[in-house]
Amino acid sequence: MKDISERIQEIPLSPIRKLSPLAEEAKARGIRVYHLNIGQPDIRTPEEGLAAMRAVDRTTLEYSPSQGFLSLREKISEYYAGYGMSYSPDDIIVTTGASEAVLFSFITCMDPGDEIITTEPTYANYLSFAAAAGVNVIPITTDIEDGFALPPAERFEELITDRTRGILICNPNNPSGSLYSREEMEMLGEIVKRHGIFLFSDEVYREFVYDGAGFYSAGHIEGADENVVIFDSMSKRYSECGIRIGAVITKNKSVAEGFLKLAQARLSPPLIGQIIAEASFSAGHEYLDPIAQEYRHRRDVLIDGLRAIPGVRVAVPQGAFYVIASLPVDDAEKFCAWCLSDFSDNGETVMMAPASGFYITPGLGIDQVRIAYVLNAEDLRRATALIAEALKRYSSWV
Amino acid sequence: MKDISERIQEIPLSPIRKLSPLAEEAKARGIRVYHLNIGQPDIRTPEEGLAAMRAVDRTTLEYSPSQGFLSLREKISEYYAGYGMSYSPDDIIVTTGASEAVLFSFITCMDPGDEIITTEPTYANYLSFAAAAGVNVIPITTDIEDGFALPPAERFEELITDRTRGILICNPNNPSGSLYSREEMEMLGEIVKRHGIFLFSDEVYREFVYDGAGFYSAGHIEGADENVVIFDSMSKRYSECGIRIGAVITKNKSVAEGFLKLAQARLSPPLIGQIIAEASFSAGHEYLDPIAQEYRHRRDVLIDGLRAIPGVRVAVPQGAFYVIASLPVDDAEKFCAWCLSDFSDNGETVMMAPASGFYITPGLGIDQVRIAYVLNAEDLRRATALIAEALKRYSSWV
Repeated sequence: MKDISERIQEIPLSPIRKLSPLAEEAKARGIRVYHLNIGQPDIRTPEEGLAAMRAVDRTTLEYSPSQGFLSLREKISEYYAGYGMSYSPDDIIVTTGASEAVLFSFITCMDPGDEIITTEPTYANYLSFAAAAGVNVIPITTDIEDGFALPPAERFEELITDRTRGILICNPNNPSGSLYSREEMEMLGEIVKRHGIFLFSDEVYREFVYDGAGFYSAGHIEGADENVVIFDSMSKRYSECGIRIGAVITKNKSVAEGFLKLAQARLSPPLIGQIIAEASFSAGHEYLDPIAQEYRHRRDVLIDGLRAIPGVRVAVPQGAFYVIASLPVDDAEKFCAWCLSDFSDNGETVMMAPASGFYITPGLGIDQVRIAYVLNAEDLRRATALIAEALKRYSSWV
Repeated sequence: MKDISERIQEIPLSPIRKLSPLAEEAKARGIRVYHLNIGQPDIRTPEEGLAAMRAVDRTTLEYSPSQGFLSLREKISEYYAGYGMSYSPDDIIVTTGASEAVLFSFITCMDPGDEIITTEPTYANYLSFAAAAGVNVIPITTDIEDGFALPPAERFEELITDRTRGILICNPNNPSGSLYSREEMEMLGEIVKRHGIFLFSDEVYREFVYDGAGFYSAGHIEGADENVVIFDSMSKRYSECGIRIGAVITKNKSVAEGFLKLAQARLSPPLIGQIIAEASFSAGHEYLDPIAQEYRHRRDVLIDGLRAIPGVRVAVPQGAFYVIASLPVDDAEKFCAWCLSDFSDNGETVMMAPASGFYITPGLGIDQVRIAYVLNAEDLRRATALIAEALKRYSSWV
């Protein structure tokens, strides 16, 4: 029997799931595990969305248009107008989560063997989608010391070959929490325009920007309409990860047409999810603003807690709800595993994602973890105290 | 600016959508169009499913497990037991429609440049997914004269090369309506076992089998557990195409593990869809049996109507809800377009899918159309009368 494809065999286990069996065992021993490893918000979905779902009076749950309901695309278009970007409903294709937007864009824009440049640490699932599309991911390393800022243009230029089809960013960044400035984005715009390549910009955390920093989208870059492909999602914005509604947004007509062929092949995005998403837009800023404030508060609690631990270094995240922390251990994956297998304090422990899985270059991020601040402030305080206690005991244990 | 990938450029427009602009123009002229081109059933979704959706009392619509809820996988496992097949919940991964099951299976099991053999006429979206995976589809032609039965083993053997990774069937077949016998399935089983290749079996129309014919699944073939990968879907069974819930079912552990990597990368299948699907299983045979009878009745009405038209030839479908008809015209695509652009009778016309788009070999199926019998019997009678009238006028018009 022939085995499965090489590209799938090469996909590593997701860093956020690798230690799940140990977490299950800890729970089986009655230990409470604070989950800092996953990005599942505890925030309520807008009541408008839930009400729309309960009010569905269709008797047949039929296919919807492959591009997504026009009424939903109009809402998305209006929402972008609120950010000063002009995207018509025709520039928008509704997808099954941003995940589908990423995978189908990779397949649409690149052939097997083509290359895409992305910052590391990176969102690990990009690597799985790139493998699925047969695309090689070329890393450009960002550093905890300067808050994971974008490297200068020369560093990008050095990596561009005749197989390079695009640059992929996540802004605000998962996993690093960095936010790219207008200057950084314009620098990327110049590069992609000069080389005639794509700028894939994953902006699903757009609302979660702190300290009064402005958000500058890839869609704001002048003269880059042919280059820019934006990935969007309702998941984090409206705390409705389960409805699986995202979007791909581009003014590049060939990309939109090619993408639509794949969208037509998969028939339609989820019907009920679209109904929920469309209604959720009514929640508006009265819903979103307090949530961004809540995340900022959680970030501050987490950062204060981490900085009080001897030997822990963090870059203060300016967006999204993740932070990469450098720990005073040789191997953060071993430490994270140990927290689940051998440590508990008053019957409690923490689960973090070892950060090495977010790096493409072997050997990087070995002493780092990614922490999601999706728990409430009180739980985050307790979780950081647990990390401190665990580090204390670990140093005498190893 | 570099253009999009070659493989996407090569995907043809879907045969069921190609004529949509003409249909829109006809409607704009006030003409009623009977849609025989699409497989969107008019049957009601089970009330159990709709009620479960309205009763969702979650306040956060969070991610669900990447493999799908265990409770849903248990229902699917029980459902398979009802067909005499033993698949545990571990052998089942819930997908976003059968579409995702097909695409992810292709990516999991095959590398770019590998080959898959499938019967033609074929479900056109397979070709898009194969293009997305970089896989070459090798057609084996089936014939209207013998009801699109499977060709003998030798014909398959002739096509097998060292790049062949599998045989793909749809049973009951979309678009031909053919149903494969136990003997035909066992023949395929022998071939895939002998060559150590996969048998991908799309069985989403399993409930729609007529004239007392038994359904013999790829999962019934003895000793082929490592080879068989089944695609399933709730869409047609429970008339809930919009919820986007399907499944991939296999006892091949490497395939399941590889597939799960992609499933984890896309995070989770639709949450609300899973809740609806799980509840829909309660509808059981009291729901399904009358529907199968209704489709059989529609089939009979359609076939009687088509056979009464001079020069029209059909193979009586034994399953699913499609029929391929050969029309007394030189070019069925031109005729279908003409029905929308230049023909109407009492302000009404029909839209059919030209069948050439379901063939891979150029030049085949030129005089054929695919007709979906998803309309009620009365509408089907009128639609066949319209086809008859259109053919009469067309022969004097061309």
